[in-house]
Amino acid sequence: MANWIRFSRADGAVGFGTLSEDGRRVTPFDRSPFESAEPAGHEFDVEDITLLAPCQPGKIVALWNNFYALSKKLDKAPPTHPLFLIKPARSVIGTHEAIRRPISYSGKIAYEGELGIVIGRRCSSVSVEEAEAAIFGYTCVNDVTAGELLQEDPNFPQWCRAKGFDTFGCLGPTIATATGFDWRAARVITTLDGVERQNYPLDDMIFTPAEQVSLISHDMTLEPGDVIACGTSLGIGSIKDGAEVSVSIEGIGTLVNRLL
Amino acid sequence: MANWIRFSRADGAVGFGTLSEDGRRVTPFDRSPFESAEPAGHEFDVEDITLLAPCQPGKIVALWNNFYALSKKLDKAPPTHPLFLIKPARSVIGTHEAIRRPISYSGKIAYEGELGIVIGRRCSSVSVEEAEAAIFGYTCVNDVTAGELLQEDPNFPQWCRAKGFDTFGCLGPTIATATGFDWRAARVITTLDGVERQNYPLDDMIFTPAEQVSLISHDMTLEPGDVIACGTSLGIGSIKDGAEVSVSIEGIGTLVNRLL
Repeated sequence: MANWIRFSRADGAVGFGTLSEDGRRVTPFDRSPFESAEPAGHEFDVEDITLLAPCQPGKIVALWNNFYALSKKLDKAPPTHPLFLIKPARSVIGTHEAIRRPISYSGKIAYEGELGIVIGRRCSSVSVEEAEAAIFGYTCVNDVTAGELLQEDPNFPQWCRAKGFDTFGCLGPTIATATGFDWRAARVITTLDGVERQNYPLDDMIFTPAEQVSLISHDMTLEPGDVIACGTSLGIGSIKDGAEVSVSIEGIGTLVNRLL
Repeated sequence: MANWIRFSRADGAVGFGTLSEDGRRVTPFDRSPFESAEPAGHEFDVEDITLLAPCQPGKIVALWNNFYALSKKLDKAPPTHPLFLIKPARSVIGTHEAIRRPISYSGKIAYEGELGIVIGRRCSSVSVEEAEAAIFGYTCVNDVTAGELLQEDPNFPQWCRAKGFDTFGCLGPTIATATGFDWRAARVITTLDGVERQNYPLDDMIFTPAEQVSLISHDMTLEPGDVIACGTSLGIGSIKDGAEVSVSIEGIGTLVNRLL
């Protein structure tokens, strides 16, 4: 398993690289891991760079109701196909970037810690086996939500609006490559100002990552760098202005974002 | 007013240009109209090119319930904010490209003739006046919908899925620049195999184009080339496999797509 990062350097240059096992050193690569990237240039300290979102998805496909525990709590039947909305490219931020409260919204803003699937190759209408091979790796997601907008109009649940604001798609800090990352053994742990709020096992997922990729690829072409946010489980809640949310998955790292 | 097109030539090269008033001649430009494009090269016949979608939106923001006549017919209150979903970039096709039936879906597929707003400059949280200036122009939209998926799950209306399939975002044939195009005087006329099915006035819109751009720019940053599909009005219906849909707006032209 490797951990891929995207970063900016002091001179503003943006690059891709892999982290050493202790997380302290960066091996730079000549292009994104979705192309045929080769190591290029000297290793350097992770202290010398700023981490960015590890990829630049053209879209985030974000699932609702994809965990048995949450489905049971909500008293909603498990779906027969992934239920999703789309978060636009501009919603994406990386670790330690600020979640910005929309100037037009003074209501509650919720965190949702999730696993993110990072697509490695273009896929359309692929089988579960082909989907498995199309998964480049996994990242942490905070699927931020302006909760009070969801049901603001009684005739139309506003999923894309409530979850689509700029900075509401937190991704990072790394992409753990699929080879060697055992999502079935992993948990999503979300803290709010250091207090644990979510701690749920990924093997409670209704649609596995490969099933999600296969089924969604029948709905739309998925592109390298696109992210599927696998949905959240129990324990979501509101973020007070100024509070810090962290989403951790062992093997990927900890994604940290403050609401400003 | 100018009519901008995007096209491919016989050698596969893709370019931008403007159409002569009679629609027969093309003046090529050196880049997209969202940059500082200059005429470049010799005029040529429109017969010598293939029209493509006139822009390549990163996202289409597609409205629901934005016409008083439809709102009244559906017996739904006019919304207080644009109600929208997002259609991904890969849904876009141009005139005379085929709408492809998803291999996973055998149900009804609906046409929805609409006005499309083409964004000319990046905008975020802009006023109505600033929004007016950010509108580059207007195009025709066929907001194709796999209608039976919308309510397939009783707990989650699947707007993004039903409208997000590849080829379900038909745009074109031109972009009429905002200067000189009077949307208040225009009508959307949709035909199915030559029979008129929709013919509605754009001045029945609930949110005007500039209001839409302003309000939606408070929800997410809009980028040059992004399209807002203004929603449809009365007369939507199903497209039989093999049938041809045309969406016409005077001053823009006729967008023609067949369902295959």
